[in-house]
Amino acid sequence: MADPNGIRLDPFEQGPERDLMGRIGRLRTERGTLETPYMFPVINPLVQPIPPRELKERFGFKAIMVNAHLLKKNFGNEVIEKGVHRFLDYDGIIATDSGAYQILVYGGIDSAPDEIIRFQESIGSNIGVILDIPTPYGAKREEAERGVLETHRRAEEAFRIISGDGMLWVGPIQGGTYFDLLSSSALKMSSLPFHILALGSPTQILKRYRYELLSRMIATVRSIIPPSKPLHLFGAGHPAMFSLAVALGCDLFDSASYAIFAREGRYMTESGTIRLKDLRHFPCSCSACSRYEPSEVIKCDKKFIERFLAEHNLNACVEELRRIKQAISDGALWELLGQRARSHPSLFRAFAGLRSYSNLLEKYSPSTKRGGIFYFDLLDLGRPEVQRYWRRLLERYSIPEEVNKLVVYSGPDPTKRLGDEDVRRVRFFKLVNPYGFVPWELLETFPLFQTEGPGPMDEIPDEALSLFKELLKRNKRVAISSFRISGKALQGLKGICEELGLPLEINVDLRRPGSAEGRPTKRI
Amino acid sequence: MADPNGIRLDPFEQGPERDLMGRIGRLRTERGTLETPYMFPVINPLVQPIPPRELKERFGFKAIMVNAHLLKKNFGNEVIEKGVHRFLDYDGIIATDSGAYQILVYGGIDSAPDEIIRFQESIGSNIGVILDIPTPYGAKREEAERGVLETHRRAEEAFRIISGDGMLWVGPIQGGTYFDLLSSSALKMSSLPFHILALGSPTQILKRYRYELLSRMIATVRSIIPPSKPLHLFGAGHPAMFSLAVALGCDLFDSASYAIFAREGRYMTESGTIRLKDLRHFPCSCSACSRYEPSEVIKCDKKFIERFLAEHNLNACVEELRRIKQAISDGALWELLGQRARSHPSLFRAFAGLRSYSNLLEKYSPSTKRGGIFYFDLLDLGRPEVQRYWRRLLERYSIPEEVNKLVVYSGPDPTKRLGDEDVRRVRFFKLVNPYGFVPWELLETFPLFQTEGPGPMDEIPDEALSLFKELLKRNKRVAISSFRISGKALQGLKGICEELGLPLEINVDLRRPGSAEGRPTKRI
Repeated sequence: MADPNGIRLDPFEQGPERDLMGRIGRLRTERGTLETPYMFPVINPLVQPIPPRELKERFGFKAIMVNAHLLKKNFGNEVIEKGVHRFLDYDGIIATDSGAYQILVYGGIDSAPDEIIRFQESIGSNIGVILDIPTPYGAKREEAERGVLETHRRAEEAFRIISGDGMLWVGPIQGGTYFDLLSSSALKMSSLPFHILALGSPTQILKRYRYELLSRMIATVRSIIPPSKPLHLFGAGHPAMFSLAVALGCDLFDSASYAIFAREGRYMTESGTIRLKDLRHFPCSCSACSRYEPSEVIKCDKKFIERFLAEHNLNACVEELRRIKQAISDGALWELLGQRARSHPSLFRAFAGLRSYSNLLEKYSPSTKRGGIFYFDLLDLGRPEVQRYWRRLLERYSIPEEVNKLVVYSGPDPTKRLGDEDVRRVRFFKLVNPYGFVPWELLETFPLFQTEGPGPMDEIPDEALSLFKELLKRNKRVAISSFRISGKALQGLKGICEELGLPLEINVDLRRPGSAEGRPTKRI
Repeated sequence: MADPNGIRLDPFEQGPERDLMGRIGRLRTERGTLETPYMFPVINPLVQPIPPRELKERFGFKAIMVNAHLLKKNFGNEVIEKGVHRFLDYDGIIATDSGAYQILVYGGIDSAPDEIIRFQESIGSNIGVILDIPTPYGAKREEAERGVLETHRRAEEAFRIISGDGMLWVGPIQGGTYFDLLSSSALKMSSLPFHILALGSPTQILKRYRYELLSRMIATVRSIIPPSKPLHLFGAGHPAMFSLAVALGCDLFDSASYAIFAREGRYMTESGTIRLKDLRHFPCSCSACSRYEPSEVIKCDKKFIERFLAEHNLNACVEELRRIKQAISDGALWELLGQRARSHPSLFRAFAGLRSYSNLLEKYSPSTKRGGIFYFDLLDLGRPEVQRYWRRLLERYSIPEEVNKLVVYSGPDPTKRLGDEDVRRVRFFKLVNPYGFVPWELLETFPLFQTEGPGPMDEIPDEALSLFKELLKRNKRVAISSFRISGKALQGLKGICEELGLPLEINVDLRRPGSAEGRPTKRI
């Protein structure tokens, strides 16, 4: 499909592998196809620790990003004459950033929006970004609003300038933490023929570890833009946060952090950052870390150290992205998030906060999985599998008309012990945490059969009790018998029966086959 | 120091880096020094995917282990003539296992205990194991008891045979899950001049993921044997469980799992095992994984795949051990355990179960740390820092005689707002979770000042409330004023004051400087 200017509108293809809102996709460009999630290493031709060619040949980076504003200002015609690929000595995909971030940081910029578009085209960039107005962290509402409107104006204007020669164009969504502005910006940008949409200005939020806020920004945008559009998160490049961003639907990242951290003597890991001077043992097997000991590296000159750390930091980013892709493929992205959540309290809070997006996560998550799913604690109630089971049970399950007794049990299956009781009048519900009381006939379906939890530490969640009450409320009156139920589950059952005025027999004796009616040991 | 036979008794030295019961140590042998925690890759001369020489030169393994029984049976005199180092073409440290595990698996063995000791000496092994009687998983008590007693008899006998030419000897502790037997075995083995003690027979327990049980076995043994003895865990070699074992005091591991898993097409990660056929992306940057894609590897012949997976599995073990060492150095081993806990419910349960060993963990953990400590949820109450703070507060803190009022607050420091009240008669306690109500004067001490938590999700732990009650009980009567305290903390305060009959002013008005007495908004 092509728009009137000849730009392909659907270069992104989502593959069958997806989990939560994350997916493995393919982005086609005129210089080849990129598998997502992907991070563009941002290179700076003025101070670049690892040459672009090496980024491709040794590290396998099929795409890089460079600042168009910086190229124009420092090298201008030379880049136009040579083309950006020859200029940078890199034959992969080159994305150019417009330099809008420079406005945010340094103020002003000496190129007009149309000039920057034409420059990106003239140097042969493969993916370009229009010159937007980033919303600064802590901006006043008026300032944010003006920036968003100006960005929208420029975005519309851009499509009158863009020649449509095969480049892909990125539409930045602004609004910062004004969520109504962010929403309207997402809506506006989605209506224009951008190939990629991007969430702008999270740098300050990332620097402050405000992952909960970032989650809300990503979820807000992702819930508006169509799934067919890849979402780029500007300036994000730390392995510890990739899984959260991917789980909420980010497909692309770009960052110079690997190099900036290297300059500052900082070593990235999937669970944080360690100063080189604090390292005694490299917790990594990458090409850099397997050649040296920390004590050897620290003795080297500044240039060597910077190159070493840049190399490791890039490897750490790539490794985490591959880990995320494998987790998507395994349907284990939630488990990975849970592991990462315990690397920093801010990530923990963001993980706990995913509960707010459970509808969104559920909508995009696959409904069956190859492997089992793990349940650890109450935070896992946010899992789409749990949420979906509850929603579907309420939507689709009802206690049949002829039933007048529910046996609620835990442990081994007691259904054979009913003896000669009329089985059509009895239904069994097994206590399976975190799901709560589960109809016997669903026990071997997904996800119930596939869930593994810590066992004795389980406690029935409040939500599961409410759901059971809801089921009972909507159906005709039944008598409830409990068997091997204790603790909070039994207290909950008592409460529900009292509230709904249903008879409850506690701990019926189902031990002897044939004891048809059960022998109540206590009656309330 | 040497015993009458000339065997050095103190080849192990614990360095300054330690955390929980883990430590970085150095084990001296006649072939060089080994940094612990360390895993000996077990090699099998009959089917060995990676030659021993390569294990040292390419992978950096300074020590390997080989089964003496297998060497004796298959190569006998050849090994004696050449010496085990030349026979295996390996010039690092060679440890030999007696073959006791073969008894457990295949029954019987054709060498007497003394023969196996002499054989290990005659081939020039650097670390030997006596021929013990492993306690099989699920053994009857009588069987376990007989095995333990026979192991003890053989251990005593061993020191009449051992020539004491510089080899180190390992004393296996048996008893399985009979904890009284395990304790007496640990005591007995500690009394003999072994250089290394080992916990025997955990293989079946590891295979069944019974990490909680394993924790108890390790903690039982570690609480008895002296810290100066390194503890070896037989047959353990999966990266996912190393951190738990190290945290409980294991220093050495040996395992052929890297090769066995490779033969079965299984790829180890720090959070579990993935079948090669299920891998789409290698979540790793090691020498093996950075050369190929899974789709390329899977097309290769069986021999290549086995070698590839063995290489990766070894790298995964080494990487995790280095990560653990760095975590020990950073004082962040607890955080690493928490991350690993979310990779499998069994590890999660074991992590939660560490609470049972908090005295032991506290005893060995350093009392200050370079970095901050993270608090995520109630599981972190098991942290030695929290336990130690509570214990010390009870032991050392008392409310001074002249004090007649405690102001319990949260949020910014209100002490300046007291105005002209007699400060000697007032003490402030700030609510700082997970610690609870903390005396103002301790706020900037370790670990209070260094603790970072998720914030709004915090809730005061029951233990913290009990502790505060204890403090109040032991001191003279005071009036309590609360300021900005709500939720469970306020409920708890009310309960305590009611129980002890102390007056409580809720939400005193400390907002205006000089409002000396505070203006109670509610009084109970």
